[in-house]
Amino acid sequence: MDKVVVAYSGGLDTSYCVKYLIHEKNLEVHTILVNTGGFDSEELIAVKERALELGSSHHENKDILEEFYQKAVKYLIFGNVLKNNTYPLSVSAERIFQAIAVVEYAKKIGAKYIAHGSTGAGNDQIRFDLIFQTMAPEIEIITPIRDLQLSRQEEMDYLKSHGVDYSWEKAQYSVNKGLWGTSVGGSETLTSEKPLPESAYPSQLQKTDSQTITLHFEKGQPIGIDDYKGNPVEVIQKLEEIANQYAIGRDIHVGDTIIGIKGRVGFEAAAALLIIKAHHLLEKHVLSKWQQYWKEQLANWYGMLLHEANYLDPVMRNIESFLDDSQKQVTGKVFITLKPYHFTLDGIKSDHDLMKSDFGQYGEMNKAWTADDAKGFIKLYGNANKIYHNVNKEA
Amino acid sequence: MDKVVVAYSGGLDTSYCVKYLIHEKNLEVHTILVNTGGFDSEELIAVKERALELGSSHHENKDILEEFYQKAVKYLIFGNVLKNNTYPLSVSAERIFQAIAVVEYAKKIGAKYIAHGSTGAGNDQIRFDLIFQTMAPEIEIITPIRDLQLSRQEEMDYLKSHGVDYSWEKAQYSVNKGLWGTSVGGSETLTSEKPLPESAYPSQLQKTDSQTITLHFEKGQPIGIDDYKGNPVEVIQKLEEIANQYAIGRDIHVGDTIIGIKGRVGFEAAAALLIIKAHHLLEKHVLSKWQQYWKEQLANWYGMLLHEANYLDPVMRNIESFLDDSQKQVTGKVFITLKPYHFTLDGIKSDHDLMKSDFGQYGEMNKAWTADDAKGFIKLYGNANKIYHNVNKEA
Amino acid sequence: MDKVVVAYSGGLDTSYCVKYLIHEKNLEVHTILVNTGGFDSEELIAVKERALELGSSHHENKDILEEFYQKAVKYLIFGNVLKNNTYPLSVSAERIFQAIAVVEYAKKIGAKYIAHGSTGAGNDQIRFDLIFQTMAPEIEIITPIRDLQLSRQEEMDYLKSHGVDYSWEKAQYSVNKGLWGTSVGGSETLTSEKPLPESAYPSQLQKTDSQTITLHFEKGQPIGIDDYKGNPVEVIQKLEEIANQYAIGRDIHVGDTIIGIKGRVGFEAAAALLIIKAHHLLEKHVLSKWQQYWKEQLANWYGMLLHEANYLDPVMRNIESFLDDSQKQVTGKVFITLKPYHFTLDGIKSDHDLMKSDFGQYGEMNKAWTADDAKGFIKLYGNANKIYHNVNKEA
Amino acid sequence: MDKVVVAYSGGLDTSYCVKYLIHEKNLEVHTILVNTGGFDSEELIAVKERALELGSSHHENKDILEEFYQKAVKYLIFGNVLKNNTYPLSVSAERIFQAIAVVEYAKKIGAKYIAHGSTGAGNDQIRFDLIFQTMAPEIEIITPIRDLQLSRQEEMDYLKSHGVDYSWEKAQYSVNKGLWGTSVGGSETLTSEKPLPESAYPSQLQKTDSQTITLHFEKGQPIGIDDYKGNPVEVIQKLEEIANQYAIGRDIHVGDTIIGIKGRVGFEAAAALLIIKAHHLLEKHVLSKWQQYWKEQLANWYGMLLHEANYLDPVMRNIESFLDDSQKQVTGKVFITLKPYHFTLDGIKSDHDLMKSDFGQYGEMNKAWTADDAKGFIKLYGNANKIYHNVNKEA
Repeated sequence: MDKVVVAYSGGLDTSYCVKYLIHEKNLEVHTILVNTGGFDSEELIAVKERALELGSSHHENKDILEEFYQKAVKYLIFGNVLKNNTYPLSVSAERIFQAIAVVEYAKKIGAKYIAHGSTGAGNDQIRFDLIFQTMAPEIEIITPIRDLQLSRQEEMDYLKSHGVDYSWEKAQYSVNKGLWGTSVGGSETLTSEKPLPESAYPSQLQKTDSQTITLHFEKGQPIGIDDYKGNPVEVIQKLEEIANQYAIGRDIHVGDTIIGIKGRVGFEAAAALLIIKAHHLLEKHVLSKWQQYWKEQLANWYGMLLHEANYLDPVMRNIESFLDDSQKQVTGKVFITLKPYHFTLDGIKSDHDLMKSDFGQYGEMNKAWTADDAKGFIKLYGNANKIYHNVNKEA
Repeated sequence: MDKVVVAYSGGLDTSYCVKYLIHEKNLEVHTILVNTGGFDSEELIAVKERALELGSSHHENKDILEEFYQKAVKYLIFGNVLKNNTYPLSVSAERIFQAIAVVEYAKKIGAKYIAHGSTGAGNDQIRFDLIFQTMAPEIEIITPIRDLQLSRQEEMDYLKSHGVDYSWEKAQYSVNKGLWGTSVGGSETLTSEKPLPESAYPSQLQKTDSQTITLHFEKGQPIGIDDYKGNPVEVIQKLEEIANQYAIGRDIHVGDTIIGIKGRVGFEAAAALLIIKAHHLLEKHVLSKWQQYWKEQLANWYGMLLHEANYLDPVMRNIESFLDDSQKQVTGKVFITLKPYHFTLDGIKSDHDLMKSDFGQYGEMNKAWTADDAKGFIKLYGNANKIYHNVNKEA
Repeated sequence: MDKVVVAYSGGLDTSYCVKYLIHEKNLEVHTILVNTGGFDSEELIAVKERALELGSSHHENKDILEEFYQKAVKYLIFGNVLKNNTYPLSVSAERIFQAIAVVEYAKKIGAKYIAHGSTGAGNDQIRFDLIFQTMAPEIEIITPIRDLQLSRQEEMDYLKSHGVDYSWEKAQYSVNKGLWGTSVGGSETLTSEKPLPESAYPSQLQKTDSQTITLHFEKGQPIGIDDYKGNPVEVIQKLEEIANQYAIGRDIHVGDTIIGIKGRVGFEAAAALLIIKAHHLLEKHVLSKWQQYWKEQLANWYGMLLHEANYLDPVMRNIESFLDDSQKQVTGKVFITLKPYHFTLDGIKSDHDLMKSDFGQYGEMNKAWTADDAKGFIKLYGNANKIYHNVNKEA
Repeated sequence: MDKVVVAYSGGLDTSYCVKYLIHEKNLEVHTILVNTGGFDSEELIAVKERALELGSSHHENKDILEEFYQKAVKYLIFGNVLKNNTYPLSVSAERIFQAIAVVEYAKKIGAKYIAHGSTGAGNDQIRFDLIFQTMAPEIEIITPIRDLQLSRQEEMDYLKSHGVDYSWEKAQYSVNKGLWGTSVGGSETLTSEKPLPESAYPSQLQKTDSQTITLHFEKGQPIGIDDYKGNPVEVIQKLEEIANQYAIGRDIHVGDTIIGIKGRVGFEAAAALLIIKAHHLLEKHVLSKWQQYWKEQLANWYGMLLHEANYLDPVMRNIESFLDDSQKQVTGKVFITLKPYHFTLDGIKSDHDLMKSDFGQYGEMNKAWTADDAKGFIKLYGNANKIYHNVNKEA
């Protein structure tokens, strides 16, 4: 019997896929859930149980947190990547690495097919298909949800007819959780006018006082909070715990999808926002003007290409080389105050702080140059404009 | 007697200049204060009185609010310009237009000299000198403060010796107010670690409830708040009044000065931040992906060149043409909730909203294309990556 | 009977379409040839005759040279657009405007369908479909060649069976001629190693002496050659006549198609190359450094988006505004020497030449600044690097 | 006695400096000539003799060809750097590395001063001063030529008065030769209208037949010509020998100097032009679209910052990392035909050629996708434009 690997989440759509592939396609189904931080161990056990109950020959829960951090989140931090100046790419980045883990698993077990539960309307189908087709052109992709376009009721009826009768309540908000943030969709995000209600967000305000924390960076990576030291994944998780009690990091992203339509989605990503903004401030102190400029240019594209499923374009590796090299001096502390719903960046301390030079000091009398030096500078600095207006002066 | 125009602010430095130019240089001093929104009528009267007392032959208070809006602020809004993703260029933009007004006045009265009170350490000297030299190469620039580098005490002693004995208390924080925001410098901003204290900011929190407002835009320009309609300058001023009761729009800018050193300055700019963020959100709904991309590229440079005294570079006019043309559809309402120290953008409504098309609808089953269309799209969309990895596959 | 408009070229593929649509689809066929400079009046008469013989109810020869120049070529000149630094976009630009003329004609006569003869492998199908779908979503597109994938023989047999028996010799090289250049494809361009033979190019070397000409520009547009004055379309055609006797402007373009595969195509475009290079040189003399920089950025994208069928993206109009505004000073003469297979740019003369200022003069002792001014300039210009290396010096 | 290192070229200006520093400044003069390919061994001996005759305590001829290649030329090749699309930065790149070698020598021998012979009008003074000040802020710079602004006659008279009586004929053209090209200035380049005469160029046409050569690249570096293999410096020199017999690689660069004035300079750089153009063509075949795009962006700035004396900006190292990483697949052969005054690129052969995929083939019927796939692609590819015009259709 031919094998199919199903990217399984435990939800109705992918549960339908499992049954459908067994019964209608006569395939040996292997399920895999790739965890990028959205599932705790209890949930993982429940998903596995359900998969096996549905008839999966084997279920794999694969934790790729560390790989996801090393290959994507790290560069999103280095690049201060916020799509459209807002969204930390919480979900889009994860999908790519989930797809990679799925295709690697499929190759390992010699599967002839991969199935995923995406519809034909969004970005995720593109991320999955494109990674699968590029990394394993020989494996065929099956997408029952996209192809059959069944209603939830039809899916439930089909499962029931095969003896599966869970209660598949439709949540009011569709929530996707991962290491780098949680996305939230609902009726409000289908149109342009309304924000999401407080209750739609995964975290709720629990603290009303303010709290000052110190975030430690080493060569661009977050390595500690106050006295706590850990690897970056741990620091991100710890920071999320602390900060989401302040309901920080919520916003709505409005963006252009790969297929050319506008989409709107809410998100909550306290750790991501805090780390990116703190990292960015530290960079303002330790990088040169043009380092900052070019990092921003490249990182915007890194985020865009990642978002748009082009993670395997070789330019991504080239950009990563630039970003890696740019972080040598990005070491230091950033002081942050957390407050209900928002935060302030208070300052930084770094051995590489370019404000600390004994050389030039802003706003103060300066020993590195004289008034005449400054006048000479301005004279020549203005040459281009002066010549232009001299030549083009109106008669 | 030769005439000199002094850019006069009423402070110690420029007051010293007036006396110095009369007594040491034997010049006929004409003073001018160019108001970009930082002075109310009482202050203007006081400044004029002081100028005349010091010996100014004539004092001019020139209001350039409308010109400043039309020639700079409008484009900063069109371009969503926040330097280093933070600072609305409150002060730097104003200096340029103050310089232009001063040099135009000097030419009108046939002055042989222009004097300003900038030091040799900062950006302002460059803005003044460069505009003066470009627009009036025949007029000589005199800068007693930069050249003589006197202490405050020496300046006060000199003035006293000429019978001027005001109390020139040094404010703890140096504050520069204008239409597009207020900058705040103090001992904290000379180093990297500390934020400014609450008390250093011009506005103080007065409201603790939240308040939802609607901001109206027409072709990119702010033209109303809720039921209030006005010209953009009035709308900005009205919005500042409403919003600064929430202590919104404060932050610290860390940036590279024209002369290559890092500078740090606090600011409060509630209206600027609200308008830019609201305008940007509206644009996300009504502009194409590449319009947004190229606007951002050009506007960043517009802000940078303006900040760095290159307002007269002809590329600035070219960028303004692009920005003007890009705003045709940027008409609609933006819904904002003001809260203590921060705000949220709740949504927008616009006839040009590209989410409103009956054509494509994000996240929903779509009638404009089929599952097969989507699969065909992905196949070809992925060609480049697939070919690359096909050709460069590891053996 | 429903009407279909066929974009007709006189060749085998589109002749097949005419017959096919009449006989298999039972449609009233209206043919149109949109001339962007590739057809002379004799050829146009022959195409019309053939169309009518094939059964076209009405044939239209539409000359859009002037519109094509005003809406595309003009901006390709303003922007010095050479795709991948080589290709003047000869064919791609024309396709867009041909598509626009076709769809406008179809709307005018109330056609229900538009048919074109592109295959499913290239860029042209995308240019046609996308313009048609955007400008007339209500009109259905029929593409027999793409759908049926017949061999030339099958097409000829079909035509013969309907009484059409022309001699459809397959030319050794596929040649597309237009105002802005001629593209040439052949067996050599299907692989990477070989150039096209001399004989494949439309023009052949006729002159071996050299000849110096003067090209006149006014606000960026070519308006004369030596003593000849004309509108830009005439100047382009006249210049092509003169220059192609030198076999100038040949090269091979290697580029990325819209569908992600690499393509290679030869071209000959003497007038386009001469005008772009001459215009670029003139701009180096009259524009500021940043005008040149931003023009290049925007124009590259203008060319790319045009090439990739996105002419109707609104950002194109914004870029055109920038380019229009940038050409105010681009007036003057450019001196060129034509030689066999190549040319040299000898110099320029312009009232706006920024080298002509009495202000600064390169390489000569300078009166506008002193040695001390220069030293002051360098001191401050170097601050950023000096501070960086001071702070980050190795112990 | 304090030591001064003089960057010595053997010419009148720096010979004057040597004598002046000995007699007027009472310094122990150490001379150094840093050879980047412009001097052969005979010339080097002559320069050394002259330096010692003038009174130099020690003369050093330092060959930095290999370092210059590894740290600059290599990246100019990787980046296909041609300033303003014309000039291979022949001289500007060399000056930087000459300055570095001079300052390292000065530090080694414990010199208190460095002297160079640049005037106050050009770019070179900035390159020298800035490198010296950044790498050795403790060493003082002396620039007699810039400061004293003597005429050639005054310099000769001074030397004569100290017993030095060479014949210092002023060459009609000022020529600067190095590994990466030769610059040529003369009376023609001081204005805009005229080209340089043939005779001004260092090489003269010697061959009138054409010749086809194969250039071999490995990871972006030139490693062979036809059957000849060598290190890149040798390949460049060999190629220059072959190609300058065809008088290839001549042009005039018009650009913006660091001090804001326009400059015009002729150059001849056959090897540089051939290598850059061949390398660029190879890249068109082996790199992805966005690799090419971002390489071009970064490389333009690399060239600009290098030209403008900012080689020590840390962003340069970041860009080098990107460029290094981008060259992994740039291995293959490029076929070139040399002809009098110009050359043609005939084609390439590479294992990484993306045209070679069995996957997609341009212009031919394609097996990787169907007509329906193509139609699906176009439908979704066009969504953004279609929605925009649907929402913004005129009533």
